[in-house]
Amino acid sequence: MIERRSAYAELSPSQRIIMTPGPVEVDPRVLRAMSYPILGQFDPEFTGLMNETMQLLRELFQTKNRWAYPVDGTSRSGIEAVLISLIEPGDRVFIPIYGRFGYLLQEIAERCGAEVVTVEKEWGTVFDPGELASCIVRERPAVVALVHGETSTGRLQPLEGIGAACREAGALLVVDAVATLGGVPVETDAWQLDAVIGGTQKCLSIPAGMAPITYNERVERKLLARKRVERGLRADGNERDRRGEASLPAGSPIRSNYLDISQLQDYWSPARLNHHTEMTSMLYALREGVRLALEEGLEARFARHRKHESVLVAGLAAMGLKLYGEPACKLPVVTCIEIPDGIDGEQVRAVLLRSFGIEIASSFGPLKGRIWRIGTMGYSCRQTNVLHLLGALEAALLYAGYKLPAGSAVRTALRMYDEMHDKAEEGLP
Amino acid sequence: MIERRSAYAELSPSQRIIMTPGPVEVDPRVLRAMSYPILGQFDPEFTGLMNETMQLLRELFQTKNRWAYPVDGTSRSGIEAVLISLIEPGDRVFIPIYGRFGYLLQEIAERCGAEVVTVEKEWGTVFDPGELASCIVRERPAVVALVHGETSTGRLQPLEGIGAACREAGALLVVDAVATLGGVPVETDAWQLDAVIGGTQKCLSIPAGMAPITYNERVERKLLARKRVERGLRADGNERDRRGEASLPAGSPIRSNYLDISQLQDYWSPARLNHHTEMTSMLYALREGVRLALEEGLEARFARHRKHESVLVAGLAAMGLKLYGEPACKLPVVTCIEIPDGIDGEQVRAVLLRSFGIEIASSFGPLKGRIWRIGTMGYSCRQTNVLHLLGALEAALLYAGYKLPAGSAVRTALRMYDEMHDKAEEGLP
Repeated sequence: MIERRSAYAELSPSQRIIMTPGPVEVDPRVLRAMSYPILGQFDPEFTGLMNETMQLLRELFQTKNRWAYPVDGTSRSGIEAVLISLIEPGDRVFIPIYGRFGYLLQEIAERCGAEVVTVEKEWGTVFDPGELASCIVRERPAVVALVHGETSTGRLQPLEGIGAACREAGALLVVDAVATLGGVPVETDAWQLDAVIGGTQKCLSIPAGMAPITYNERVERKLLARKRVERGLRADGNERDRRGEASLPAGSPIRSNYLDISQLQDYWSPARLNHHTEMTSMLYALREGVRLALEEGLEARFARHRKHESVLVAGLAAMGLKLYGEPACKLPVVTCIEIPDGIDGEQVRAVLLRSFGIEIASSFGPLKGRIWRIGTMGYSCRQTNVLHLLGALEAALLYAGYKLPAGSAVRTALRMYDEMHDKAEEGLP
Repeated sequence: MIERRSAYAELSPSQRIIMTPGPVEVDPRVLRAMSYPILGQFDPEFTGLMNETMQLLRELFQTKNRWAYPVDGTSRSGIEAVLISLIEPGDRVFIPIYGRFGYLLQEIAERCGAEVVTVEKEWGTVFDPGELASCIVRERPAVVALVHGETSTGRLQPLEGIGAACREAGALLVVDAVATLGGVPVETDAWQLDAVIGGTQKCLSIPAGMAPITYNERVERKLLARKRVERGLRADGNERDRRGEASLPAGSPIRSNYLDISQLQDYWSPARLNHHTEMTSMLYALREGVRLALEEGLEARFARHRKHESVLVAGLAAMGLKLYGEPACKLPVVTCIEIPDGIDGEQVRAVLLRSFGIEIASSFGPLKGRIWRIGTMGYSCRQTNVLHLLGALEAALLYAGYKLPAGSAVRTALRMYDEMHDKAEEGLP
């Protein structure tokens, strides 16, 4: 009977300080947006909000692409939607791997029926873009899929030059920017990225539930060659007439219905061809979260992420902790710490959560139990959170018997924030 | 610049009376649940809420199944997840079709690589269950997929007896109960349904965004034969050790990662094997919506849906309108009306929406422009909504030049509600 009583209890989640690489704390203004009454999916007021969201997403992705809209699922639904809609069975797909989420791209591409070619880099490092460009020109894949910010290792893969190599090789470049969009520059057009997938629950501080994507005309041409109008929507059963073309497309049909972006773009176009029922409340949240990001300004937002990262890193160093991975390619929004010898990483995490209400993350696969990961993303990326975390982590480490110069971390952080504040008052960079 | 200004405007959706077959108005208590701060996905408090939600869903689906959890996407993501996880390429799949959503099942099954066998009934009618049982035993498919409540035509397919036929034929029975769950009895165990998919945005009055599913051990056996652990999660690269078995499974791998329910059930099990990031706020909404449905009581909830349907139908008859379809199999939560000759159905809908803030639906394919569809689902299914709708529809029809006995519809409805009220006060049925 206990389980039954508990399941019927009123919802009342605790307040947390969430310093993981996602999901992170949601901006209260986004939470408020989700509490508004819903509109019907074809209500002109709602389709107006859909169009506005597309416009906001274009700015966020720094693109002039026509197509920028959310896939209705969590981040990996957006990745799978793009890959399954582009990859025909037997297609050669090139995937550079430097952490867990590279394996995810491989996993998805294989399930799409691709012939996958991978190159791997030791975890904690990234690829030299020139090296990747040479591989791409040599391998001539149909699709290149690449992670921009690898949260499993806290690394950022530079993308400049890779888009040009893909065009030379006739490949489409698909970038997983789930961890970076809204926290680190993602320059879709300038970097010649053909398709980009973002995440909501990381630097945008929106709950998990949608995957904003954008793609260009090179991608759209491929989609149109594979497109089919759904049974039950064809007015007269004649697919050709419906498509207004003389013949069926030459590409093989897309293997998913839910994740078929050739259908999704019809739903997001003025035709509004019925597909799924758009997630009303999540769309409200997405629109509000992106709106807030653009109101802050992308440059100011990126600078805010770098600022709190620098204080966090200095505080951790003052505690005597060692960062994991190659510093040159550190992902600004995720900081990985080597768990000191003799310390039980999970026990420290448990103390932080149970006693301080602060959540940090462990990692996956070979890094499980070896590193902690601290996110400084979106609404969670703020001064009070960094200071609370440093103080609590110091206390948890001391409690676990770790030797450190007590008080240094927070003192270092406070001094840095004061200096930044003074500079800002004087108008200095 | 107008587009830009509008995209940046603060969110402020209008209040609507939504009387479509979904999405319908969301219970304000569910809206409130979504405005709570989020928890991390592996926070024990959150995994506790996940477990409670599973327990609530079991009661809602009237099942003792171990597995009852949401797929993170809109309703059709749940349908595709079940079908793609069960159908191996080349499998024979039997699909009886009596409206648009039967075609959707066919569409998805074909994209899964199935050899699809269909039988079709004229729209507006349903199948005799005995007739279907004979077909199933004769065709011996691997999977039978069937719509329970067909919103495109407003029909309810009786399911009794079909489960037994599927067991005799060695087939798995998959039921699309998107439109019926929470509004009409869906007796998973009693009817021997192997997998059932529900919808949130219809009789549960939760925003679109999750697809609750349940399935039994017959389904799970099939899943385990196809299961693969994801690359990047295997601790040592050895899939066999991870699975604790001597050999790889015999089934073909599931073609989707996002919609692979063999992986989803690991995420929803105590193992909590990382897959996607659970949609926190939508999970809050789902838990609250199902909790409210169970607090009302399933029988009381079904009775409420029948009550308001009966008043709506009487009011429409008093207006001289004709219902569409075979009365014996009318879906209680959707009422389809033949648009009278000489009346422009879309113009009437536009008057209802623009002047009264009331939304009703049109239909798809051959019924487009021929019928209106009125939903009486979940929180939208209440006396004030039925009365407002009848009054507004009458006014819109008069305004369009249709002849009807003015005042009859609302008077009929008011009298019925009064009689029901008096009976209830006297304790009569």
